Amino acid sequence: MSEIVRVGLIGTGRIGQVHALSVANTSGAELTVVCDTFVDGANAVAALYGGRVVTDPADVFASGEVDLVIVASPTSTHVDLINQAIDAGIHVLCEKPIDLDIDRVDSLRAKAAAADIHIALGFNRRFDPNFAGINARVAAGELGTLEQLIIISRDPAPAPQSYIAVSGGIFRDMTIHDFDMARFFVPDIVEVTATGSNVFSDYIKEEGDFDSVLVQMKGRGGELISIVNSRHSSFGYDQRLEAFGSDGMLYAHNVAPNTVAKYSAAGVEDRTPYMEFFLERYATAYQQELAVFIDGVRTGTMTNPTFEDGRAALVLANAALESATTGRSVSVDGKL
Amino acid sequence: MSEIVRVGLIGTGRIGQVHALSVANTSGAELTVVCDTFVDGANAVAALYGGRVVTDPADVFASGEVDLVIVASPTSTHVDLINQAIDAGIHVLCEKPIDLDIDRVDSLRAKAAAADIHIALGFNRRFDPNFAGINARVAAGELGTLEQLIIISRDPAPAPQSYIAVSGGIFRDMTIHDFDMARFFVPDIVEVTATGSNVFSDYIKEEGDFDSVLVQMKGRGGELISIVNSRHSSFGYDQRLEAFGSDGMLYAHNVAPNTVAKYSAAGVEDRTPYMEFFLERYATAYQQELAVFIDGVRTGTMTNPTFEDGRAALVLANAALESATTGRSVSVDGKL
Amino acid sequence: MSEIVRVGLIGTGRIGQVHALSVANTSGAELTVVCDTFVDGANAVAALYGGRVVTDPADVFASGEVDLVIVASPTSTHVDLINQAIDAGIHVLCEKPIDLDIDRVDSLRAKAAAADIHIALGFNRRFDPNFAGINARVAAGELGTLEQLIIISRDPAPAPQSYIAVSGGIFRDMTIHDFDMARFFVPDIVEVTATGSNVFSDYIKEEGDFDSVLVQMKGRGGELISIVNSRHSSFGYDQRLEAFGSDGMLYAHNVAPNTVAKYSAAGVEDRTPYMEFFLERYATAYQQELAVFIDGVRTGTMTNPTFEDGRAALVLANAALESATTGRSVSVDGKL
Amino acid sequence: MSEIVRVGLIGTGRIGQVHALSVANTSGAELTVVCDTFVDGANAVAALYGGRVVTDPADVFASGEVDLVIVASPTSTHVDLINQAIDAGIHVLCEKPIDLDIDRVDSLRAKAAAADIHIALGFNRRFDPNFAGINARVAAGELGTLEQLIIISRDPAPAPQSYIAVSGGIFRDMTIHDFDMARFFVPDIVEVTATGSNVFSDYIKEEGDFDSVLVQMKGRGGELISIVNSRHSSFGYDQRLEAFGSDGMLYAHNVAPNTVAKYSAAGVEDRTPYMEFFLERYATAYQQELAVFIDGVRTGTMTNPTFEDGRAALVLANAALESATTGRSVSVDGKL
Repeated sequence: MSEIVRVGLIGTGRIGQVHALSVANTSGAELTVVCDTFVDGANAVAALYGGRVVTDPADVFASGEVDLVIVASPTSTHVDLINQAIDAGIHVLCEKPIDLDIDRVDSLRAKAAAADIHIALGFNRRFDPNFAGINARVAAGELGTLEQLIIISRDPAPAPQSYIAVSGGIFRDMTIHDFDMARFFVPDIVEVTATGSNVFSDYIKEEGDFDSVLVQMKGRGGELISIVNSRHSSFGYDQRLEAFGSDGMLYAHNVAPNTVAKYSAAGVEDRTPYMEFFLERYATAYQQELAVFIDGVRTGTMTNPTFEDGRAALVLANAALESATTGRSVSVDGKL
Repeated sequence: MSEIVRVGLIGTGRIGQVHALSVANTSGAELTVVCDTFVDGANAVAALYGGRVVTDPADVFASGEVDLVIVASPTSTHVDLINQAIDAGIHVLCEKPIDLDIDRVDSLRAKAAAADIHIALGFNRRFDPNFAGINARVAAGELGTLEQLIIISRDPAPAPQSYIAVSGGIFRDMTIHDFDMARFFVPDIVEVTATGSNVFSDYIKEEGDFDSVLVQMKGRGGELISIVNSRHSSFGYDQRLEAFGSDGMLYAHNVAPNTVAKYSAAGVEDRTPYMEFFLERYATAYQQELAVFIDGVRTGTMTNPTFEDGRAALVLANAALESATTGRSVSVDGKL
Repeated sequence: MSEIVRVGLIGTGRIGQVHALSVANTSGAELTVVCDTFVDGANAVAALYGGRVVTDPADVFASGEVDLVIVASPTSTHVDLINQAIDAGIHVLCEKPIDLDIDRVDSLRAKAAAADIHIALGFNRRFDPNFAGINARVAAGELGTLEQLIIISRDPAPAPQSYIAVSGGIFRDMTIHDFDMARFFVPDIVEVTATGSNVFSDYIKEEGDFDSVLVQMKGRGGELISIVNSRHSSFGYDQRLEAFGSDGMLYAHNVAPNTVAKYSAAGVEDRTPYMEFFLERYATAYQQELAVFIDGVRTGTMTNPTFEDGRAALVLANAALESATTGRSVSVDGKL
Repeated sequence: MSEIVRVGLIGTGRIGQVHALSVANTSGAELTVVCDTFVDGANAVAALYGGRVVTDPADVFASGEVDLVIVASPTSTHVDLINQAIDAGIHVLCEKPIDLDIDRVDSLRAKAAAADIHIALGFNRRFDPNFAGINARVAAGELGTLEQLIIISRDPAPAPQSYIAVSGGIFRDMTIHDFDMARFFVPDIVEVTATGSNVFSDYIKEEGDFDSVLVQMKGRGGELISIVNSRHSSFGYDQRLEAFGSDGMLYAHNVAPNTVAKYSAAGVEDRTPYMEFFLERYATAYQQELAVFIDGVRTGTMTNPTFEDGRAALVLANAALESATTGRSVSVDGKL
């Protein structure tokens, strides 16, 4: 590989732009090829961050100008593009999820496992400094035995109906981040139970989806995991995590835009609402995700979540949907 | 009723002593009869707080010296003592649970419903200023529609094996407080799902009981309720509650013994661990519980949790146990 | 002394009532004589908490019915009543200040020093669990060498003009608590510098008094002490303390009425304003102050602030006033 | 001016490197000339961030390649370099202080006032989001009338003796930031009183300097300002600010490296110590300081602190030193 890691980007929507900025901010990396079937999008990104513009992903893989490719195109293209990356021998960081259909994911599973390249899944939250910090401290034994994990995850506001319609449902679209977070701490999950509800959104209900869910899971060691989701939150992005062990607890509070508290006759310790936007909330995580991947590519040590992690999250999401529909706990023992 | 409310106490163990102190601290109330089959216990309480000592509960009801009776004797005696209180026409505040056996509870249900007296169940946490304050604010509409309720409830340390053996199991012994707290906010619960685990205590496992559980429930309006329990907590009594609604969230943080924070090279904002003992943690709640009951007796307006509340908590506990055992959600629709 | 400590109370105004309640709450203590020239006040207190009513303080000392006396009458009577207590050989807990006039205080100084009784000054804040806790931890060396002490002390609202007119000025009336708190941590203060200001109250200005002041002091060991006062605070009683040492800092945050935080589109972590009333804020401190004094009387070990502490606080207040008036630091070396 | 703002940098030490990075991170700005008499330093910075290397500042001003210059060379060169910038008609952002000698500052005062260029002083803390946010809210009237301002400012560790020896003393070297912060809120200060102390550092004492100081100041409107400084802090950079007004208080808490709290038998709510390094603590402030200056240069609207602000801070520092030495309040009325 050249000294400068050359990066290709496929997909220049909101998330693609985030990755382009991350590349620009990474010393030792360069955006060399930018691809979007919507050429205006590709041109805009290339103008800001550099790179030659193409409209066919095949041209990215054939270019000889990229060491790794970031896949930020629609979900339905992910399996095919990872496949092309394997064939071309080019490392790939693919946005989550791999696919909404487990059969399509499984069709690539063996080939992905055998591939010579790094395949990283874009579960960026593993790189949030707070969650990553807790994970490292738990791994170092600071809490003794990990016994319980609570993940609170609420979006500021639901996506529009058009998006919900093709999202694959809350478990595969939103909770999937929390399933991966759960596996970040407890990789070997054996049982999933979920309850869904419709409490505030008519259009989410119309699409046959839930706007609020609870999930409880069990790890092989008896670890209990609780996930709380809502598609809305009046006070901004609500993203907390509580790791409880035999010797203590580590709690990641929300990220605040500043440290200023107000004291008045109306109330005390009052602070500005949390951030509204996931790109702002997870800006550091996106940057760090790419830095770790590029470093992994350089050194040959892979620490990002993998294809298998991406698949496991989807299996858990499917199990949760089944549980919420049937009212039964679903065993995933041997299925991850 | 005489101007001073005359109180009889049956049972002078740890919890009975708390109630005796509460009576002593309540202006307009007087401890007149103290009963325990273990006469030394009764004598000790009477020496501190006054009252004539008897050893047979029947003597309390027949004394003509009490307007209300507090039942703090072992669980197995509760149904019979409430029954006697009804017959004697004496108001009764009975410690939770009514009984561990729903059939015994139901055998008294109709009579309790028809009784002329106030029958209050000792779910003291409803009177904790933090939980009570949130409940009042939710009822006043401050959060818009209540959508989610999260209850974290961890004891400092498990009871000894001898107690666990006769406790009725974690759901009926410990979670029962949280079931009542859930119904304080969402009275009409329709579905219960639970997962139990054994992660730290061999002797709890030997007794066929769980040391850690998760419960998720659904209210008729689609409200989602999550309960997290552990029989131990290294940092003291962990008792938190999060009420999440369409317009905001109210969160009851733990009660700290003081407001002092330490800042050093080892860490910042470091505070003294929470209280270890439920009587200390809920001292105000016990006091307030009795004050509200006495006020209710005086004015004829009953606001304490009732016999039916006591029964409903037991139904939920049984459903949770069934769910944790079968891996199925259990409908309690029409059963509360 | 009889087994039960018999307490006489002189003065049944707001603060006298607090002490009467404290006596009632103290096991092993009994209110035996209640004195006020305003007999209705004395009768009201006696009706609630017991005690024989008299209207002449001399009758309290001559009664033979009291082991200790609490002086809660107007400031101008304190010197004379302490004097009578010494003559009668009856322990005395006297509200602060001893007097507004240092000459009158000094006229009793030698006699007080030689007296056989305990003379305690009512600097109740030393008994606040937060401040007392920090003091004990500093004394135990937890912060290494104490280097800086910051006291923030703001009242919810100023006293009425009639009170201000006879208060002796903010330094002797309000800051005096903070001077004593400073000496609780740094007894040997050598220099006082103060700045006063009038920023919000016309009537305080009319009385020639300040509504806001800053005081900085220096201890013999070079310790720096900063006091910040305001006669008003829109968010309730603001009472904080920061002890900074070579090895860390201990910070006493304000006391909140509950632990509930609100999260909404308007703000997060928003809590109920602090308490408005000093008796509510310092309820525990008043109770503890009396308990410690009674215990000291029983055991002969005096740990409450003394006559000399009361005098020292007044010397510092006078020095602060001189400094604020002249623009010069005032040495109190050898004067405490 | 060219569309891209061309920046010259004089001085490539620690602070110069920070500014070079800020330029690199600012879109629409370019580092064109890098100057240091120590040519290796200049080369290193140019290698990372671009720019032609020169060793004589005169070459920067004569280059025709810069629209603005950042002066990050030793304090003793500042007056001369600002003078050259004025002569060359090149905007200048000069690190604080202008000089340690008020006479040298005043020798340039009239010329600076008459100059056609923007002269900004590097009081970066005005651009910290927390302090800036409070300032804006105070200006918008959110607190009613501003009555009190408390600035706590403690460095993690003292500079070495060699630096202390030439620093100009704590007031001119360290407190000068707080003097400017005070004037950010209360520009018209009329009186300064200071107390200095030596409590922990022998070598600071040897240099005739204080290691700990208190300053109290008064604004023309009666505003009271309290500054607390220490040259060391065991728990990291301690930088807080409290603005107290008639309608409330705004408090800037310290900036924490993450949001994670630990709960264990040793303590609860325990967090990682604050940052140790001013460049890390104020990274955003430095970036924002430059962005605002470049924007000001582009638009002709100057909002950074000015030459006059730099001079005023030095006047206050001198007054504080005089006060700490003489024990008298020093009037600065008409001197700012």
